[in-house]
Amino acid sequence: MSEHIYKLIELTGSSPVSSDQAIQNAVIKAAETVKNMHWFQVVETRGCIEEGVVKYWQVTIKVGFRIED
Amino acid sequence: MSEHIYKLIELTGSSPVSSDQAIQNAVIKAAETVKNMHWFQVVETRGCIEEGVVKYWQVTIKVGFRIED
Amino acid sequence: MSEHIYKLIELTGSSPVSSDQAIQNAVIKAAETVKNMHWFQVVETRGCIEEGVVKYWQVTIKVGFRIED
Amino acid sequence: MSEHIYKLIELTGSSPVSSDQAIQNAVIKAAETVKNMHWFQVVETRGCIEEGVVKYWQVTIKVGFRIED
Amino acid sequence: MSEHIYKLIELTGSSPVSSDQAIQNAVIKAAETVKNMHWFQVVETRGCIEEGVVKYWQVTIKVGFRIED
Amino acid sequence: MSEHIYKLIELTGSSPVSSDQAIQNAVIKAAETVKNMHWFQVVETRGCIEEGVVKYWQVTIKVGFRIED
Amino acid sequence: MSEHIYKLIELTGSSPVSSDQAIQNAVIKAAETVKNMHWFQVVETRGCIEEGVVKYWQVTIKVGFRIED
Amino acid sequence: MSEHIYKLIELTGSSPVSSDQAIQNAVIKAAETVKNMHWFQVVETRGCIEEGVVKYWQVTIKVGFRIED
Amino acid sequence: MSEHIYKLIELTGSSPVSSDQAIQNAVIKAAETVKNMHWFQVVETRGCIEEGVVKYWQVTIKVGFRIED
Amino acid sequence: MSEHIYKLIELTGSSPVSSDQAIQNAVIKAAETVKNMHWFQVVETRGCIEEGVVKYWQVTIKVGFRIED
Amino acid sequence: MSEHIYKLIELTGSSPVSSDQAIQNAVIKAAETVKNMHWFQVVETRGCIEEGVVKYWQVTIKVGFRIED
Amino acid sequence: MSEHIYKLIELTGSSPVSSDQAIQNAVIKAAETVKNMHWFQVVETRGCIEEGVVKYWQVTIKVGFRIED
Repeated sequence: MSEHIYKLIELTGSSPVSSDQAIQNAVIKAAETVKNMHWFQVVETRGCIEEGVVKYWQVTIKVGFRIED
Repeated sequence: MSEHIYKLIELTGSSPVSSDQAIQNAVIKAAETVKNMHWFQVVETRGCIEEGVVKYWQVTIKVGFRIED
Repeated sequence: MSEHIYKLIELTGSSPVSSDQAIQNAVIKAAETVKNMHWFQVVETRGCIEEGVVKYWQVTIKVGFRIED
Repeated sequence: MSEHIYKLIELTGSSPVSSDQAIQNAVIKAAETVKNMHWFQVVETRGCIEEGVVKYWQVTIKVGFRIED
Repeated sequence: MSEHIYKLIELTGSSPVSSDQAIQNAVIKAAETVKNMHWFQVVETRGCIEEGVVKYWQVTIKVGFRIED
Repeated sequence: MSEHIYKLIELTGSSPVSSDQAIQNAVIKAAETVKNMHWFQVVETRGCIEEGVVKYWQVTIKVGFRIED
Repeated sequence: MSEHIYKLIELTGSSPVSSDQAIQNAVIKAAETVKNMHWFQVVETRGCIEEGVVKYWQVTIKVGFRIED
Repeated sequence: MSEHIYKLIELTGSSPVSSDQAIQNAVIKAAETVKNMHWFQVVETRGCIEEGVVKYWQVTIKVGFRIED
Repeated sequence: MSEHIYKLIELTGSSPVSSDQAIQNAVIKAAETVKNMHWFQVVETRGCIEEGVVKYWQVTIKVGFRIED
Repeated sequence: MSEHIYKLIELTGSSPVSSDQAIQNAVIKAAETVKNMHWFQVVETRGCIEEGVVKYWQVTIKVGFRIED
Repeated sequence: MSEHIYKLIELTGSSPVSSDQAIQNAVIKAAETVKNMHWFQVVETRGCIEEGVVKYWQVTIKVGFRIED
Repeated sequence: MSEHIYKLIELTGSSPVSSDQAIQNAVIKAAETVKNMHWFQVVETRGCIEEGVVKYWQVTIKVGFRIED
């Protein structure tokens, strides 16, 4: 049945490797407590600079998951 | 007393009937677990197309509810 | 002559029936005092929730009307 | 295989009945020449006013369809 | 370790005193149940008018807090 | 009866004291000619700088008031 | 005294000559009934196309004028 | 009959003369292959600088044209 | 001669590898039928989540290409 | 002569006292090296939370100053 | 070599003649101290009104210039 | 002491390798002349297409650095 309802939560993930990995880290962490996640959408991409180079990528995403019936 | 604090959650409802019904479905589903909901505001209206017609209306809303004292 | 000037006013209509009806109500009310209305555009769609269901649809629109020469 | 590519086109549909029907009309018209449409998202909702009432609902949508391999 | 994940929640605080106090009230209320809050960002500033003066400042903020490992 | 219609007007208030006071000044001035004002929402916050300090806070708001039946 | 209050109104001017002239036309028309106009800001630039060329430039502006004490 | 459907396409025109002419150039070029164009709306205005002066105005517009029945 | 006209089309590419690769895939697919592509700009970054990890990166881009004289 | 050119710079000020003071601090600091500042406009309001209360208000502003002839 | 880095600065130009000339004036003034400017993009178009007509066009632009190696 | 003031500058970096590398390149170049950089935020992601593939990733960022006391 297709009349599902979804909830969206907003998360900021970080990674020293890449902006994609910052997203992946946020999703993997959320999966510890949230089930039925279906999609994410990027809200903002930022990062920390230390000693003149990017040290951490920080990406804020919305994650949508299906509310169980 | 009027110094209430409200929390906003973001939901996506869907309906094969209409975009208004997609909102109503999301609110009714949320009411099973959330009390004191006061208002909603539409964030985005989308939908699924199958065989050349709109099959599902999907509306993302923010719902505000009062945090109990 | 086509060098008409239009004024836009912003209205919020409400309806217990539908979001479209909230717009129609705002237009009909405005027509009591404003002439030569030509178009509207939706600014925001919100609504009131009571006892876990949507009770009122509230739609804010801009209405454009021609300033008479 | 899931590495599909989609194209988005922008359409404005109109209807004297409702804003939902304006969307449905745009989708049905597009289906005459476009295959594999999957979703739409609303860009803007406007309308024509005549003699103090809404005469036409006009909704601009983006429609996404899969580019065939 | 710096690969922390943060969650953002959205709150509306109110105050008869000032817009800053409306934010402070929302944060203090949230602190009753949420730990490790690090920052807020303002989403929208509104208020209630009664008898021709502002009676309540209402500020909607996003609050970011670290998800514990 | 709840099918009220509201009109929104846009005002810029100014104050040498604070941004909140700039809003309050705009509301109090509007109250001289407008009845039934219910809410405001901030559109933009600006200010004048003279001799290296902020001399005036200027806040643009929308004010909503009920159109009398 | 600098604690002036300003009102902003929204107008759409049109001109077959240029987009600047569309703005000038809206301002000149408004000056017939509005005093103390100080500034404008462009909201949107559109136009009509007939027989494959731009026939009318249509520019929507906000105009700010001082409310007299 | 007024239930027309319109398609919007996005174009960037350029001109060494003026921003208005950049729009006119884009419309005239499109008219070689597109019929029934009714309106345009400006998306973005940019330009090229060479040797310290603006050499080309580049304006991105959306053009709406009626899909023939 | 520099008075070129460009058309912009909107595409959504996907990739299990990275968000950059999703863009590259969309561009390569479009190149099968579109010539003279000059630039892209990112509109939105989303993705699919399956079993608690990002499975597909989906990036919507606008691609600009020169209309041949 | 009124054909002045202005430059805008973006600053983030902070204050433990109030959001207005965060702006004032940024302006006063900038005044040490920048002359002829005329206005500011708020870009974003954020803040730091420590031990469940707002500890610092952080406001990002654009400041406009006249380029000397 | 194409891995150039560009800096963007924000300027407001003004002109009693036209909005295009306001941009041109800002670029020409900047060229007195900035080299290697490549492009501009319009951020906002405003203007001053005196005695019921537009007296000055004021356009805020971002100008991009290549940082020399 | 935490009442630091930050300045934000806008940069566009480019790279044939990836969008992340375009950001890193902009930061590293800026570090040659700017000290105390703390964070960046992405403003826009674009790129150049040559012969049907992405040749350069171009990312515009804002970089925040502390103004020394």
